[in-house]
Amino acid sequence: MTANPLAPPWLEAPADSNALADGVWSANARRASGGELEVAGVPASALTAEFGSPLYVLDEADARARAARIRTSFETAFAAIGATVTVYYAGKAFLSAEVARWMDEEGLAIDVASGGELALALAAGIAPSRLGLHGNNKSLDELDRAVAAGVGAVVLDSAIEIERVADAARRHGVVQRVRLRVNTGVHAHTHEYLATAREDQKFGVPLGEVAGHVARIRSLESLEFLGLHSHIGSQIFDVSGFVEAIGRLLAVHAMLLEGGPVPELNIGGGFGIAYTSVDRVTPIELMAEQLAEAVAREAERNGVAVPNIAIEPGRAVIGPAGLTLYTVGTIKDVEVATAFGSAVRRYVSVDGGMSDNVRPALYGADYSTRIAGRASDAEPVLVRIAGKHCESGDIVVHADYLPGDVAPGDLLAVAATGAYCWSLASNYNYLVRPPVVAVANGAARVIVRGETEADLLARDTGLNPTASGEGATR
Amino acid sequence: MTANPLAPPWLEAPADSNALADGVWSANARRASGGELEVAGVPASALTAEFGSPLYVLDEADARARAARIRTSFETAFAAIGATVTVYYAGKAFLSAEVARWMDEEGLAIDVASGGELALALAAGIAPSRLGLHGNNKSLDELDRAVAAGVGAVVLDSAIEIERVADAARRHGVVQRVRLRVNTGVHAHTHEYLATAREDQKFGVPLGEVAGHVARIRSLESLEFLGLHSHIGSQIFDVSGFVEAIGRLLAVHAMLLEGGPVPELNIGGGFGIAYTSVDRVTPIELMAEQLAEAVAREAERNGVAVPNIAIEPGRAVIGPAGLTLYTVGTIKDVEVATAFGSAVRRYVSVDGGMSDNVRPALYGADYSTRIAGRASDAEPVLVRIAGKHCESGDIVVHADYLPGDVAPGDLLAVAATGAYCWSLASNYNYLVRPPVVAVANGAARVIVRGETEADLLARDTGLNPTASGEGATR
Repeated sequence: MTANPLAPPWLEAPADSNALADGVWSANARRASGGELEVAGVPASALTAEFGSPLYVLDEADARARAARIRTSFETAFAAIGATVTVYYAGKAFLSAEVARWMDEEGLAIDVASGGELALALAAGIAPSRLGLHGNNKSLDELDRAVAAGVGAVVLDSAIEIERVADAARRHGVVQRVRLRVNTGVHAHTHEYLATAREDQKFGVPLGEVAGHVARIRSLESLEFLGLHSHIGSQIFDVSGFVEAIGRLLAVHAMLLEGGPVPELNIGGGFGIAYTSVDRVTPIELMAEQLAEAVAREAERNGVAVPNIAIEPGRAVIGPAGLTLYTVGTIKDVEVATAFGSAVRRYVSVDGGMSDNVRPALYGADYSTRIAGRASDAEPVLVRIAGKHCESGDIVVHADYLPGDVAPGDLLAVAATGAYCWSLASNYNYLVRPPVVAVANGAARVIVRGETEADLLARDTGLNPTASGEGATR
Repeated sequence: MTANPLAPPWLEAPADSNALADGVWSANARRASGGELEVAGVPASALTAEFGSPLYVLDEADARARAARIRTSFETAFAAIGATVTVYYAGKAFLSAEVARWMDEEGLAIDVASGGELALALAAGIAPSRLGLHGNNKSLDELDRAVAAGVGAVVLDSAIEIERVADAARRHGVVQRVRLRVNTGVHAHTHEYLATAREDQKFGVPLGEVAGHVARIRSLESLEFLGLHSHIGSQIFDVSGFVEAIGRLLAVHAMLLEGGPVPELNIGGGFGIAYTSVDRVTPIELMAEQLAEAVAREAERNGVAVPNIAIEPGRAVIGPAGLTLYTVGTIKDVEVATAFGSAVRRYVSVDGGMSDNVRPALYGADYSTRIAGRASDAEPVLVRIAGKHCESGDIVVHADYLPGDVAPGDLLAVAATGAYCWSLASNYNYLVRPPVVAVANGAARVIVRGETEADLLARDTGLNPTASGEGATR
């Protein structure tokens, strides 16, 4: 077929617009013999018939397998250089009680980034010692709750937090283990990274101030220093930014060893996933090996022992395990001027949008889509999947090719929506947030109930005067 | 003072960083004699003491006054050319039962953009005839409910919707009044507008197809055609885009008059507001006069009677009436490289962020901030107000100047957050959405209850197995 001139340069016109590109879709998503998309043996149409549309779908076995694979890859690579690895699942990507338990069962610890995420993880039964608390501005209440609960580590982000956490630990009569987040000046994005004196962002303390902060931490009896923490970005496909950061971190780490133990180094997360068929993800085993090599080399260069390592993947675990099902409502061919005349972009509007996936609007993120309810041999056409919100920026998929007979009533699947879709979801235009279902071994079950219109109106005190009762003061 | 080289070029270093810039803050926000910010006579600290922080605050009298001023301006300007005006409040900007009633009492009709917004407006007691239903992809259920309720008008967005609405009206034995949304090819933003054959977006039908669609509408006994609808963008400070669109619309409007009545023309909304002191808003009276002049001129040019007019402001009514109160948690000076060495950006982190105002991250929107709890004569410093989310893009105010003694515990106010903040709010990082309070005549009351952590965990079936009961199927 001829490429549509409105297609972005990276988008290949597919030979078969039913095909599920390798690595983009969850491991147990496939076309059944009749052509319908199924996840872990459950047809897409059966899912929406039972749970409604739109619908978030998690492929449980895939999420578990990704968690296990990341853990095993890093454990193996770092065992070879004499180091252990703790893998924290970054709960901010997607957190529910079930998912927290999957991660726990697969041997991952869990990072939480607020009192709410902490409450969820504790309610799910995760051992507090397996939790890490993050955040540039944790409230006194959040710190108090985390210390009281006995979280395994608090990542300190600023000088004032050293005192706040020490106070909380003293109040509770415990010694709180802490990491110190460092702004290394390295920011990695996809294939490039920037390295400056210090990155222009809110997190961490500059490398040059670390020694003073760690001396203060070590002087406080209610704190135990674990090591440095660094996070260099997201959707990283190449280790070069990590390697640069590891070099900077281990130089400081070595200096800190002169004053006491520094048992570990946390190099953060940000491992990239494939949202489209042209995203080339580095196999996690190779990334783990390259990172272990960098840690070993920098430890040797600085004449220190290899520290134990912690990493914090979120998206890489849960992103590709998710997909969203939508139903097509309206279709419109829009003629758009081009340099050589005009071309047609087909707007396919679905029953969700920026309320259930804000990433295309927020980050210009690309996604992939396929007709889920059936296969078709119609000639592929360039489509833009739009949502139903009253806003022109309400796009779900900027560009992909679908069979040209796509029609109202068709079920669409959008791949790799497991991370940062549900967690960032809103009720814009009073749309309800869809349920999340987990699918495994031919069976689906709700893990987060969908909202109802009644839920949306329940907090309106102009409708429910009693809603202002206890909740009025939060 | 010397400007910080990290400040954006448009940002003026203020003589007084306590001053509330004209037009940016709601009419009843002022500094009390002690220096504290108060809204309609209620001090900021009293608001957060009673209702918590962060907190959305609406200045009721200001919202009502803006609604009334827009209505009066347009009614006056268009009465002079023999036309009536219907002003629809665009509920997508912010909708609660109280606010819906304020708008109703000020003589505005209300636009809803989904079944949920429709349900809210009806529950608030708004007469269905005073509602307009919008959307590029209304579900069959939404159309059915709207027609059954007797909404005043449905804005048809595509050919298929003509049939869907006609069917719904037939089923309910009513004649449904409809508008037809047109993609004029005019897109206005701030001081510029683009005019093309057709804009590359999901809404409306091209001008060239209008005649066919209107003929179809007129052939259906269950539909009554009201006229054309156009919406050209948002944050518009200049009438030129409207004038261009009006010219295009009235040419088609005149052609349609050959086949039957076309009682009105809906020119949409998008009137800009000031988010910062350098945003120069055109007085609404002047805009109304210029638009009336354009309508009269184009009607005359086409030899037709002046149609009645409908407009749809949302942000211009509720945006400046709102502000958000936050509490400062941490402060960090970050040294950033510049062309001539380096400069310091002060990151002031507050207890909310992209979950309660996603616009800075989503649109790069600028906002203004002031210390709310006190005035200070400390030298102004450039600040960036960051949220508490685990994401570097979590910015509330990209750049403003605050007194240099800003400190943890200070209350901050961010201006003009009445529109598209609460309505786009999320629970990212399991943060609860703050309450909305209305303030008038020295008294504050909750109009939307804030969420609790219990609310956030209630739908998790891994914690509450019964949550999957009825809700499991939505």
